[in-house]
Amino acid sequence: MTTYSSSFHAVEWRNQALHLLDQRVLPHQHLIHEYTTATDVADAIRDMVVRGAPAIGIAAAYGYALDALAGRDLEAAYRVLAESRPTAVNLFWALERMASLGTSDAHTLVAEAKKIHDEDISANLAMGEYGASLLSDGSRVYTHCNTGALATGGHGTALGIIRTAMSDGKIEQVYAGETRPWLQGARLTAWELMQDNIPVKLVCDGAAAQLFRQGKVDWVIVGADRITANGDVANKIGTYSLAVLAKHHGMKVMVAAPLSTFDMTLTSGNDIPIEQRSTSEVTSLNGQAIAPTGCDAINPAFDVTPAELIDAIATEKGLIMKPSLETVALLVNS
Amino acid sequence: MTTYSSSFHAVEWRNQALHLLDQRVLPHQHLIHEYTTATDVADAIRDMVVRGAPAIGIAAAYGYALDALAGRDLEAAYRVLAESRPTAVNLFWALERMASLGTSDAHTLVAEAKKIHDEDISANLAMGEYGASLLSDGSRVYTHCNTGALATGGHGTALGIIRTAMSDGKIEQVYAGETRPWLQGARLTAWELMQDNIPVKLVCDGAAAQLFRQGKVDWVIVGADRITANGDVANKIGTYSLAVLAKHHGMKVMVAAPLSTFDMTLTSGNDIPIEQRSTSEVTSLNGQAIAPTGCDAINPAFDVTPAELIDAIATEKGLIMKPSLETVALLVNS
Repeated sequence: MTTYSSSFHAVEWRNQALHLLDQRVLPHQHLIHEYTTATDVADAIRDMVVRGAPAIGIAAAYGYALDALAGRDLEAAYRVLAESRPTAVNLFWALERMASLGTSDAHTLVAEAKKIHDEDISANLAMGEYGASLLSDGSRVYTHCNTGALATGGHGTALGIIRTAMSDGKIEQVYAGETRPWLQGARLTAWELMQDNIPVKLVCDGAAAQLFRQGKVDWVIVGADRITANGDVANKIGTYSLAVLAKHHGMKVMVAAPLSTFDMTLTSGNDIPIEQRSTSEVTSLNGQAIAPTGCDAINPAFDVTPAELIDAIATEKGLIMKPSLETVALLVNS
Repeated sequence: MTTYSSSFHAVEWRNQALHLLDQRVLPHQHLIHEYTTATDVADAIRDMVVRGAPAIGIAAAYGYALDALAGRDLEAAYRVLAESRPTAVNLFWALERMASLGTSDAHTLVAEAKKIHDEDISANLAMGEYGASLLSDGSRVYTHCNTGALATGGHGTALGIIRTAMSDGKIEQVYAGETRPWLQGARLTAWELMQDNIPVKLVCDGAAAQLFRQGKVDWVIVGADRITANGDVANKIGTYSLAVLAKHHGMKVMVAAPLSTFDMTLTSGNDIPIEQRSTSEVTSLNGQAIAPTGCDAINPAFDVTPAELIDAIATEKGLIMKPSLETVALLVNS
């Protein structure tokens, strides 16, 4: 198997500072910002300089370590980071792991953040193997949003499976849903896949159903921002639509997520808080208005896909087939 | 009932010339172009200065009359107009009606084009009554693309039903799907509805499913570019997706179209030619790239919704409930 090595870093720790690749201006600008305070990292998470549930968790861990380095109040650091985005549970998981060390020693906390980062990459590589094992040769895969090296510590979750499957010679075609309103598919996923010479075609979200009806797709593979105990999945808005459409056409749906994405304190997806973002993300693009002035809109950042629409969840510990309260518990507690 | 009167004209015949409101630059610019040749009208149709199946038919009829006025070859006029866009059947229907008069007399042909225009408005008003009769008080309607006064001779097809139902006090909320890639929903439908003070919220296409799951929508009402003898409907890309999602959530789907949209020579939607437009419509917006340079994409302009997903088709002659070969023939031939 060809081991993946990416030519860019979404999240990088260098010279006692956090460096984030600005995902708001990709693919046409390659801008890297340096951060030295938890508050600035929280702003970067909220403003989507960095996005993707695992990458947000890693960035938050480094943000916490940054305030330790500067001798600032770590309870305040925890709070400001936890309030940056409400849906992705990895954020809270990473902060909890940092705080649970019960120390303000900067050396220890930086090391722990790096460990979270490294473990995420290893988890993605393992997940890639498990997920790719379900794919047949000549697979045509539809993916949504960005779940690649940009959204994680490296390799990716759903895109990690696609990368691993590509290395195994199993991928015929990837379709990237453009993912309005933020266009993660167009701006980030297409760019990542083109960098790796993985064949990708961009698709408007509303055009997926016709593609499915034409029998041009075998698998929908997506990431997750939070998975509840019963296997319900909160993920980027548009995921639920794809899952319903895939099932209608007899296709398979796989979710790729590290165990840090599971929130076993919630029994169902109905309990997940869904972030509502500014309607200006819908009514304008790159600062240009694309709707009438004063136009009302809805802009939920995530939706919830019920477990019964999902065939498999790939984690670093193995596959959960037909996710349910029982099958999720079996793997998570194993 | 309040009778609708629009403050703008998408298609207007004035001073022996055709005037088209440029729909590529709405809602932020109000630009009207004057046309005096069939070739220029064909270009305007291809470039989507004017769009919407009924409006295209009306514009083509005037384009044909323009070449009669100037004493140009009418067979060439027919050809160039017929080749402008392949999917909407109203275009061919209108041209056939003009040519079948068997005359090159400009006065007669201009009068016929005006008649086609006037009949379209009357048809929309009748369709609005039939369609609105199916709606209950407090209806929440989701619509796609633009099917209003901008897409027709006036009033609109699906938006015509919404306008009539609004006058009847039956509309609680309209959701307009933004309709990527061309954003007809954002740029045109939201603008039309705001002009008439009809409550509208803009929705990204991928967010419709979650809205349906939350029980916030009663009806999906859309237009059509071509309807085959069995009731299959070709319409703007994204329509099929909405129909599958609506049925999954136990909602109702209505299609609004004048009889000129029916193509009884085709037995099923599989026979409809689907226009594939430039991928640059997906990869750039307002001349700005929104995907990596060289990114491949698919850009089908239309999709086909099978009759079994449609509850009713509203025409100017009445409603077709549960469209099928039998129920379509019954109304069309009545």
